[in-house]
Amino acid sequence: AFRGAVEALPIGRKRRAFWSEYYDRVGPETFDKAGEAGLRKSLEDLLAKHIFGKTQAGHVTFVGAGPGDPELLTIKARRALHEADVVIHDRLVTPEVLELARREALIIDAGKEGFGPSMKQTDIDALIVEHALMGAHVVRLKSGDPTVFGRLDEEIDAVTDAGVNYSIVPGITSASAAVASIGQSLTKRDRNASVRFVTGHDMKGYAEHDWRALAEPGQVAAIYMGKKASRFVQGRLMMHGAASDTPVTVIENASRADQRVLESRLSALPDDIAASEMDGPALILFGLAPRTTTTVSKHIQEEIAL
Amino acid sequence: AFRGAVEALPIGRKRRAFWSEYYDRVGPETFDKAGEAGLRKSLEDLLAKHIFGKTQAGHVTFVGAGPGDPELLTIKARRALHEADVVIHDRLVTPEVLELARREALIIDAGKEGFGPSMKQTDIDALIVEHALMGAHVVRLKSGDPTVFGRLDEEIDAVTDAGVNYSIVPGITSASAAVASIGQSLTKRDRNASVRFVTGHDMKGYAEHDWRALAEPGQVAAIYMGKKASRFVQGRLMMHGAASDTPVTVIENASRADQRVLESRLSALPDDIAASEMDGPALILFGLAPRTTTTVSKHIQEEIAL
Repeated sequence: AFRGAVEALPIGRKRRAFWSEYYDRVGPETFDKAGEAGLRKSLEDLLAKHIFGKTQAGHVTFVGAGPGDPELLTIKARRALHEADVVIHDRLVTPEVLELARREALIIDAGKEGFGPSMKQTDIDALIVEHALMGAHVVRLKSGDPTVFGRLDEEIDAVTDAGVNYSIVPGITSASAAVASIGQSLTKRDRNASVRFVTGHDMKGYAEHDWRALAEPGQVAAIYMGKKASRFVQGRLMMHGAASDTPVTVIENASRADQRVLESRLSALPDDIAASEMDGPALILFGLAPRTTTTVSKHIQEEIAL
Repeated sequence: AFRGAVEALPIGRKRRAFWSEYYDRVGPETFDKAGEAGLRKSLEDLLAKHIFGKTQAGHVTFVGAGPGDPELLTIKARRALHEADVVIHDRLVTPEVLELARREALIIDAGKEGFGPSMKQTDIDALIVEHALMGAHVVRLKSGDPTVFGRLDEEIDAVTDAGVNYSIVPGITSASAAVASIGQSLTKRDRNASVRFVTGHDMKGYAEHDWRALAEPGQVAAIYMGKKASRFVQGRLMMHGAASDTPVTVIENASRADQRVLESRLSALPDDIAASEMDGPALILFGLAPRTTTTVSKHIQEEIAL
């Protein structure tokens, strides 16, 4: 009979919220205080609260989807994805990751790049806010880490301007997955005491001292979206004294089944990139070559074969 | 009867490896080719291989434990931890994360810091290799991301010198968790086109152009282990023209239940740090203040209350 009364709540988020509050909190608390006798009353009270109470506020969770391998999602990210009513994702988020959303969830591709139709940033902002204001738990799923080249701030501003709560679940950024796949570290004692994350696009605005600092021996930088800028970057670095044989490794589709590793040198970088015909997202690791011991290459082959 | 024969294999890793190979690969393959009739024979063959075959080689997985919250482990990291025979962890890895290891696993604290007894790096290297050579699946668990200030290279060298295979599972570095917890990004359009990860210790070796570059308006750096160096860093940055009111935020125990956020300015940084009496691991976000909208502070309070 009681289960029938619950049908006054619409199927989906609202009904789940009711049962979840009952089993996780109200039920056990009532049982501790009043024993089994109190349970029926507490169920009815809670149901009344859920039916007549004010609409639950929406919430936006900005979630890092990592570089592509669904196993590189955090446990927290997977949970957020599983609980989302609406998932708004970037073009680079892989289908394997999207499969972790619930079947009933609304999945929206906000892909901003490429040749197909794409959405403007302001349209994406509006879309996120619209669903949150309707009471949905929105997951805004961004490839990599949302705090690194993720245009996160514009979206947070839109969400907070609308009075909606949000939280951020960090993700594995592609530099981290890429460097792990070639058996190297982003920092290493007696080689580089710091590492820079930059974008190829933004390096066009680099000042003199930025280039000088990066051209020093042993420096390491992870260059996101750097394929097109590679000739420009090569020129500036060599002009500022970087050695022409500085190792540079380009990792396409880091962590994915179709990951490719291009081993190059600063002197050959733009030509090697052109010859490789890479068309997936690529990360350039300036200052690093793949580790070369036999054991490692065996490992890399195993990983590629997986 | 067959289950009895399997008892020739010792309980634990070896027996699990047998059943796992059978159920995951040999069983289904045999069934597809020869149907049920072939299963018994394939079980016996596989058992003979496992009993008389050569000892399985060990393997070392360098795993990022993330900043502390066990929910910030990747799915891959949790799986590696669950499959490990031996877990060798840093002092900063939290008990909540270690609980994800199997009960039978050998857990070794290789804490290198603090006032208690600690192990030298070469001792840790030897310990990892020793267990791997005995055939164990060793998880070397490092707080944060093993590729960022993790002294990963020394340990990889030791492992490959011993002819042992390895793999690396990246983790959430504390800069990423810290910046997410204050509602900010490490990079932002029209503010900073790149971000630096440095250690307070290593900044003592900074050159003139490094300080100049960092002192520019809008720059962001994540300074690991920077509490003690804060007065030195403050002096150099102000000497190179950084504004005295540049926002600086110190996050202690990022992502943990006891996370604390210290909001400061470059001019007050060393004094604020001293007054805060922070004694947990802290990350300094140079160039960033916590986001200040009402909605965000509510969120932060919720997170703290969790």
